[in-house]
Amino acid sequence: MHRGLIVQKFGGSSVANVERIQEVARRVVDYRRRGYDLVVVVSALGDTTDELVELANKINLHPSEREMDMLLSTGEQISVALLAMAVHKLGVEAISFTGAQGGIITDTSHTRARIIKINADKIKEELKKNRVVIVAGFQGVTLTQDITTLGRGGSDLTAVALAKELAARECEIYTDVDGIYTTDPRVEPHAKMIKEITYDEMLEMASLGAQVMQARSIEVAKKFDVPIHVRSSFSKNAGTLIIKEVKRMEDVVVTSVTINKKAAKITICSLPDRPGVAAKIFKKLSLEGVNVDMIVQNVSHTRQTDISFTVSKSALQKAMKVTRKAAANINAGQIIADEDIARISIVGVGMKSHPGVAATMFGVLAKKKVNIEMISTSDISISCIIKKRFAERAVRALHKEFGLGK
Amino acid sequence: MHRGLIVQKFGGSSVANVERIQEVARRVVDYRRRGYDLVVVVSALGDTTDELVELANKINLHPSEREMDMLLSTGEQISVALLAMAVHKLGVEAISFTGAQGGIITDTSHTRARIIKINADKIKEELKKNRVVIVAGFQGVTLTQDITTLGRGGSDLTAVALAKELAARECEIYTDVDGIYTTDPRVEPHAKMIKEITYDEMLEMASLGAQVMQARSIEVAKKFDVPIHVRSSFSKNAGTLIIKEVKRMEDVVVTSVTINKKAAKITICSLPDRPGVAAKIFKKLSLEGVNVDMIVQNVSHTRQTDISFTVSKSALQKAMKVTRKAAANINAGQIIADEDIARISIVGVGMKSHPGVAATMFGVLAKKKVNIEMISTSDISISCIIKKRFAERAVRALHKEFGLGK
Repeated sequence: MHRGLIVQKFGGSSVANVERIQEVARRVVDYRRRGYDLVVVVSALGDTTDELVELANKINLHPSEREMDMLLSTGEQISVALLAMAVHKLGVEAISFTGAQGGIITDTSHTRARIIKINADKIKEELKKNRVVIVAGFQGVTLTQDITTLGRGGSDLTAVALAKELAARECEIYTDVDGIYTTDPRVEPHAKMIKEITYDEMLEMASLGAQVMQARSIEVAKKFDVPIHVRSSFSKNAGTLIIKEVKRMEDVVVTSVTINKKAAKITICSLPDRPGVAAKIFKKLSLEGVNVDMIVQNVSHTRQTDISFTVSKSALQKAMKVTRKAAANINAGQIIADEDIARISIVGVGMKSHPGVAATMFGVLAKKKVNIEMISTSDISISCIIKKRFAERAVRALHKEFGLGK
Repeated sequence: MHRGLIVQKFGGSSVANVERIQEVARRVVDYRRRGYDLVVVVSALGDTTDELVELANKINLHPSEREMDMLLSTGEQISVALLAMAVHKLGVEAISFTGAQGGIITDTSHTRARIIKINADKIKEELKKNRVVIVAGFQGVTLTQDITTLGRGGSDLTAVALAKELAARECEIYTDVDGIYTTDPRVEPHAKMIKEITYDEMLEMASLGAQVMQARSIEVAKKFDVPIHVRSSFSKNAGTLIIKEVKRMEDVVVTSVTINKKAAKITICSLPDRPGVAAKIFKKLSLEGVNVDMIVQNVSHTRQTDISFTVSKSALQKAMKVTRKAAANINAGQIIADEDIARISIVGVGMKSHPGVAATMFGVLAKKKVNIEMISTSDISISCIIKKRFAERAVRALHKEFGLGK
């Protein structure tokens, strides 16, 4: 019985040791025996990639990106070979492929390459022979046969791109959580797993700091309408389906509450309030590779204004240096850094047709005596910057108010 | 200044850790700055290959050979990337290649593939850009892009084959010994390093158990007249040059004395002395994959004879089982195994034109009261099986008699 093709992706924690590899093999074989054709994408074993990076840095603190890709790509190559051996052991035919052998053709941007096409002929050939095809995630090859890696979230991208190319019925992303939750269960024990969520909501959540999947792969899935199923490699439970449109009860406005403590805020005081001043500062930051997230500028009644923006904590030092220099040139006042902040967001496509969601959010925070320092909104999300110590309290109150624990 | 191309090969012990990789990089850079073009072939770091084999066996005791090659080839890929990074660090341009990228095309015999051709265009291109080209040893790729490995001594073979293909002036094999010695220096402190030796002598020594280089690569070097320079990766001293013909003083007859304690002897007593009996036994052994080395059959004056042969100690158990079964079928007598033996050999192309070398050897052993149990000769070597406890004494006496310590 042919049930169609599924692409399954297993992350590093799912293949962290021999026992887990065997566990993955059992799952793969179970699917195969139930009649599915399978392409399995695997990441490097556990901490292999980190260990290789460490080894490289002992030799050269600024290794060539081409050589770094050459080095790191061995991690997934080891995984696919071992998984193939484990599947064979269970009596099922399987064959492993590197990214290059799998036909994952990328541009030449080493360490962050983009897939430009997939030559899936070899994979299709092996599928026809009823073999499970196991492909190394995270890696590809340029047209001139240089090995590349796809950067963060690369294995997910490999899986989604293969699912698209092979017209798979679903792309399963196996991870160490059950699925996508209404909020972080460590913060709110009543958090519930979401059964279905739209690409747009998931994209918003990813950009707001949800760590299950990178925005890149969700964007590709959205573009080609590839259904993604995020689920646990440690259980057989269904997880979260990420799809184009979700049929929900009318009153579901907010799908999730996210929390992000990795941001820091920079405020430039007494900025001359004339056109082009802000542009100058943000151009400098961008040239130096500092990603700015939220930006808020107060309306000014004098000829001076304050401007605040957030960057990731890891970029704070660099951002402060660049900002100080830029601000000095334009005669601005004090520069204040604040690491003691959290970003709390609510996400939901339902917002589009429900006015007053922002007001509800602000009301909840006010009732909980949480001061809002910055606000930013998109079509399907509202974010507030608050003091870090209020984060958990705010999340729980919002989660309750929008009925997410039910 | 262009001094021509050298191929350098560094074994696993030469790149066992970060410090040694840096040491290799310094040597490579030194050669490059002195004007040599360089292709560097590297093995896997230290014990990487053994560790990967162990990992595979935890998953599958009989892993697919294709998947084994997929797994093991990562070892050299890691080495070449790290060495390239180390060379970059010293300010010299370099690029790493897998066997596939280096154009090492092999047949499809996984784990023991044979090189069928080398497409060296990419290597030549990079050499033209004045880059050091670092190629993963031990591995290649089939015409259908499956990764293969070349089996034992594979990295030497990669180096010699590349030296041939690129018409290098020399192939340097870096190892953990200074070069080829007249005998094992642990046995005879007066052993001397041999400055020049012929391919034939080296081949004979390899087949007699000298472990520095496998016969395969020497055969290829001989076939294409590639000069091999065996030397230490821990010093700058010149080592041993393996070449076609060596100009020596007339009286150099014997080049080296070798010792091999890895053999065991099997004797079949009271074998019916009629044609085809021996053939039957050795055919059975060959069918079971047991390599037989020396064979001696006594002239028989009755209608029965004894036959003795040697196998490697590791194959003894299997060989005994096969021999017992075969001998029973043909009504032979007792089967005796003897592990307490050593094979002592003298090697030298000079023997061809010097009669009486064998007599000298037997005389020396007799004078030292060493009984000879088996004798075997080739064009350029004479071997005797003796009791293991006499091995060192015999080696030292022969080394002295043939004037090798001078």
